[in-house]
Amino acid sequence: MKRLPGVGDGTDLYALTDDALSLGRPVLDVAKALLGAGIRILQYREKDKKAGRMLEECRALRELTRAAGACLIVNDHVDIALLCEADGVHVGQDDLPVPEVRRLVGPDMIIGLSTHSPEQARAAEAAGADYIGVGPIYPTQTKKDVCAPVTLDYLDWVVANSPLPFVAIGGIKRHNIADVVAHGARCCALVSELVGAPDIAARVAEVRAAMRGRGQG
Amino acid sequence: MKRLPGVGDGTDLYALTDDALSLGRPVLDVAKALLGAGIRILQYREKDKKAGRMLEECRALRELTRAAGACLIVNDHVDIALLCEADGVHVGQDDLPVPEVRRLVGPDMIIGLSTHSPEQARAAEAAGADYIGVGPIYPTQTKKDVCAPVTLDYLDWVVANSPLPFVAIGGIKRHNIADVVAHGARCCALVSELVGAPDIAARVAEVRAAMRGRGQG
Repeated sequence: MKRLPGVGDGTDLYALTDDALSLGRPVLDVAKALLGAGIRILQYREKDKKAGRMLEECRALRELTRAAGACLIVNDHVDIALLCEADGVHVGQDDLPVPEVRRLVGPDMIIGLSTHSPEQARAAEAAGADYIGVGPIYPTQTKKDVCAPVTLDYLDWVVANSPLPFVAIGGIKRHNIADVVAHGARCCALVSELVGAPDIAARVAEVRAAMRGRGQG
Repeated sequence: MKRLPGVGDGTDLYALTDDALSLGRPVLDVAKALLGAGIRILQYREKDKKAGRMLEECRALRELTRAAGACLIVNDHVDIALLCEADGVHVGQDDLPVPEVRRLVGPDMIIGLSTHSPEQARAAEAAGADYIGVGPIYPTQTKKDVCAPVTLDYLDWVVANSPLPFVAIGGIKRHNIADVVAHGARCCALVSELVGAPDIAARVAEVRAAMRGRGQG
């Protein structure tokens, strides 16, 4: 099974882009700051851009992530993930089903799937997902049409029962990330907490410190 | 060069789906009515649906169009076009560029490109588009972010100068289609005029009669 790369010290952060939350900074500048701060997993998730622009941005991100030894995941758009030679593609429950995505991307590309329940986690495994998103752990306003928080209970279930690598996501901030880690998450995905920080490098350091604080305690 | 199939009697109609304009009828019912009325080119264009649902609908449309000997074109979503084995994919100026689409779909799938100027028509030819959309001929409210009407002048230019098959589109109705045909269009694309008709078969017949009326005069 393909695994997400990571820092490997138990403080893996998975950053998602979102132009609307980036304080007016272009996605490439935000990505440079994230990669410079040591982020090694980056998901391009931009909901309101046209495909032509998304492809351009993804190609630029591909160069940046490759140079940094980081993993690039593209949200939803399998065609764009293929064209920019991303490491992976991430889909939700209402997007293209994992086996269909697999038909398009072949055996080597990482496929991530958002899950919100034990049933969905089991189905993700059966469908051949390489990792699952587990969330939203906390309330979040980043994503439209998001489901109610799954709470730490679902995270506990995944830790105990799912063989798949997973990424905890949804409303995770520096003030609550230690709880998420204490419940068994090794990789946490953040959006506004990172891309919305005035000083991204400082914020990444802060989040990582918070993650270590109780995660290893 | 791959060409759009058609009735071949100078009254080719190219129908586009749009759930929001279909008077509450499901897209599959609308498609059945269109195909039953003799439509032989159908583009699936649904802007507000999730990819999973779009794939399901496109697969059902693929069966219907295949049984009817009709051509199925998918708007924008190259991944879905590939998965449902569509005959073609149609992109706009801000979508994935034609050469990129070609890389994904191979040599056999039809690629259509919306154009709004002689420069774009020339670029479409150079990029390897199989046909171009020419429009919007008239004002239209079907598409968001649409450009100003190109008027019949651009259509005249295409008829005189472009070697590519083309489809006139944008605000074409039964009351003006004869003018479009008189200016040289053999294939006209309609959205609300067809899918928004209470009796789709009757409307197709009416539009076709109008198209013949001055088109052959």
